[in-house]
Amino acid sequence: MQSQMRKLKYHVATSLDGFIAREDDTVDFFPADLPPILDYFDTLASAYDTVVMGRGTYEPGLKVGMTDPYPSLETYVVSRTLKESPNPRVHLVREDPIGFVRELKTRPGARTDMSRIVRAAQLSVAKDIYLCGGGTLAGALFDAGLIDEVLIKLNPVLIGSGKGVAPRLPRQVDLELLSTKTYRTGLVLLHYAVKR
Amino acid sequence: MQSQMRKLKYHVATSLDGFIAREDDTVDFFPADLPPILDYFDTLASAYDTVVMGRGTYEPGLKVGMTDPYPSLETYVVSRTLKESPNPRVHLVREDPIGFVRELKTRPGARTDMSRIVRAAQLSVAKDIYLCGGGTLAGALFDAGLIDEVLIKLNPVLIGSGKGVAPRLPRQVDLELLSTKTYRTGLVLLHYAVKR
Repeated sequence: MQSQMRKLKYHVATSLDGFIAREDDTVDFFPADLPPILDYFDTLASAYDTVVMGRGTYEPGLKVGMTDPYPSLETYVVSRTLKESPNPRVHLVREDPIGFVRELKTRPGARTDMSRIVRAAQLSVAKDIYLCGGGTLAGALFDAGLIDEVLIKLNPVLIGSGKGVAPRLPRQVDLELLSTKTYRTGLVLLHYAVKR
Repeated sequence: MQSQMRKLKYHVATSLDGFIAREDDTVDFFPADLPPILDYFDTLASAYDTVVMGRGTYEPGLKVGMTDPYPSLETYVVSRTLKESPNPRVHLVREDPIGFVRELKTRPGARTDMSRIVRAAQLSVAKDIYLCGGGTLAGALFDAGLIDEVLIKLNPVLIGSGKGVAPRLPRQVDLELLSTKTYRTGLVLLHYAVKR
């Protein structure tokens, strides 16, 4: 059933020079523009039923009391150091994140109601898995061949240094451009498939 | 005559994760796709009469015998270590690159024949200055407020680590998106103005 396996999509905001956060994990350099954010949450709700993230991505929200950052998604946080989950909805993945994600992709997943788009055909497809970072986890998952698509929200700002998209990538990952979308705010959404 | 000052445009190819070269200055990860390259050289010939680059950007070509990388452009290489220029057309800038570029922008520059575009009006404008890297020089010129526009050729590849677009940027640079152009090869050309 390889062909029906759910996709893992790395969906992340970056500066123009390729940083997803400052070295201290803050992201104050991203403009808080409403239209792209609404579009983004609409995508999350309709396309995904599961989110996977590293501890470094989870903790900045946690520090301000956000224990469940994506309430509509089944949530997994990869961490060797967190002792217990701060929220019963948030599942910790303590060992073998590669094996865990590989198994997660084979699970059936919720169904997406596509009837708005092709009402007559009554189509539905399995919802995909949202990888929201960070770069270290993404690098390991790229290396294991588990990431299927990359969606970059490219912000019109240069910050010079910070945490990269996939900083520990052992070899280059070739991509195929699927689409681009430009917002009035100057943000460009770039959608790629990983070439096999 | 501030309004007639020539523009300095940082025109550089990057990976999707923001690298302009590997740590050893090689750029083998960029696909050698012909249409974007032809378009690029057409832009160089028509829009610029001068190129400025750092030593790290000049030397990889020099190592393979290319002493004059842009024969149609007045060429300046910023370097404290090069003793003499390997080519009489290539001018070394040994001291105060910021002051040098500031003065260069006030020079009149060659005229661009715009008659193909607005033949009736017989317009012509001063050709601009092409900053082709590297990141260290770009960071210093961003900091001095001397870079007017940024043109990124975003290649559909992730490489994980390497030399950044502007790695020593002392503060963030906010940009305004002017245009995007997508090539069949998956390359996306992004054109920004630096916000003042």
